[in-house]
Amino acid sequence: MSITLYTTEASIGWVSHIALEESGLEYKVVPLDFSTQQQASPEYLKINPKARVPSLVVEQGVITETPAILNYLARIAPGSSIALPQDPFEQSIIDSFNSYICSTVHVAHAHKMRGHRWVDDEAAKKAITANVPRTMAVCMDMIEGEFLVGPWVHGESFTVSDPYLYRISSWLEGDGVDINQYPKIKSHHEAMNERASVQAVKAFFASV
Amino acid sequence: MSITLYTTEASIGWVSHIALEESGLEYKVVPLDFSTQQQASPEYLKINPKARVPSLVVEQGVITETPAILNYLARIAPGSSIALPQDPFEQSIIDSFNSYICSTVHVAHAHKMRGHRWVDDEAAKKAITANVPRTMAVCMDMIEGEFLVGPWVHGESFTVSDPYLYRISSWLEGDGVDINQYPKIKSHHEAMNERASVQAVKAFFASV
Repeated sequence: MSITLYTTEASIGWVSHIALEESGLEYKVVPLDFSTQQQASPEYLKINPKARVPSLVVEQGVITETPAILNYLARIAPGSSIALPQDPFEQSIIDSFNSYICSTVHVAHAHKMRGHRWVDDEAAKKAITANVPRTMAVCMDMIEGEFLVGPWVHGESFTVSDPYLYRISSWLEGDGVDINQYPKIKSHHEAMNERASVQAVKAFFASV
Repeated sequence: MSITLYTTEASIGWVSHIALEESGLEYKVVPLDFSTQQQASPEYLKINPKARVPSLVVEQGVITETPAILNYLARIAPGSSIALPQDPFEQSIIDSFNSYICSTVHVAHAHKMRGHRWVDDEAAKKAITANVPRTMAVCMDMIEGEFLVGPWVHGESFTVSDPYLYRISSWLEGDGVDINQYPKIKSHHEAMNERASVQAVKAFFASV
């Protein structure tokens, strides 16, 4: 089996990268240089026409979108820390959390630097950026109050939702949100920082 | 088994509703009145604190977010038209498409009517709304050119991605995008219109 992750340091690609470490599978990583727009190069567009990261290249083809990569890795690494529960309802709770992150939380964050996706005039881009502390705080209120069971997102068992929340919570300071307002999220972030998988991803980016 | 879908007519709730019809499972539907903000009522916030639809209430609890509901229904209806393939890669292609819809396509559409989620000043809301024909066209170019295999989204087999694309393509005219520019999407839309599941959901909303 051959697995290659295309990612870049300042991206959501960390989530899949941490999950790969947790899976115990052999894999390699190709870091893209966003400063030279490598994600929009003709070579990379053949892998991912959306010009985004992450992309996971496996023997059967290419998988894009973080929730899809996470479920795939969980399915092919059933003996690992990211194995899916057997019960369909328990699986759906993981899917639901990951879907909320990708469709609402990550989108709220993206309005800080990527306003050009949705508007072209500068005043509107500024208005969008200015609202990020508010919209991200709404998301963190929801996660802290309703979804994060503790110590891990869904309770006693680690799941693929944990690297997803970790990556988002690492963005809070830059988004103008004080993590100290959210004791459960803060404690989760600290517990993730201790994991060998997170340390391995940090070491990878320190080395490239 | 008891299954209840909370939804409203002008929403993405159709996708789960169509999937329920396709599943062959028994279910009931509770339509919410968004004109009186029923989605933000204290009773409904106990079901879904995000004040959104759809919510699927089953014996074990509540499932929110369309991709999670779709995977759940596919898992508990393995003999139906929405059954998941066994192969993890094939499952990941379904997850990937659904994740793209929820995080990018539905978000692009939501900027038309729901700009208040991301900005508070009126000029910025107008700028956001004005860009929807452009951003939705980018998404449709991607789906038409890269993802839609035909006749169904992933090829010869119907999957949960089909009602998801159908609901999005039913919004194109209102979003200022001409479906005639996209022959594969148009043909998919017409094929979906013929299905008994879609006709049943239309009949339901005509009756309430």
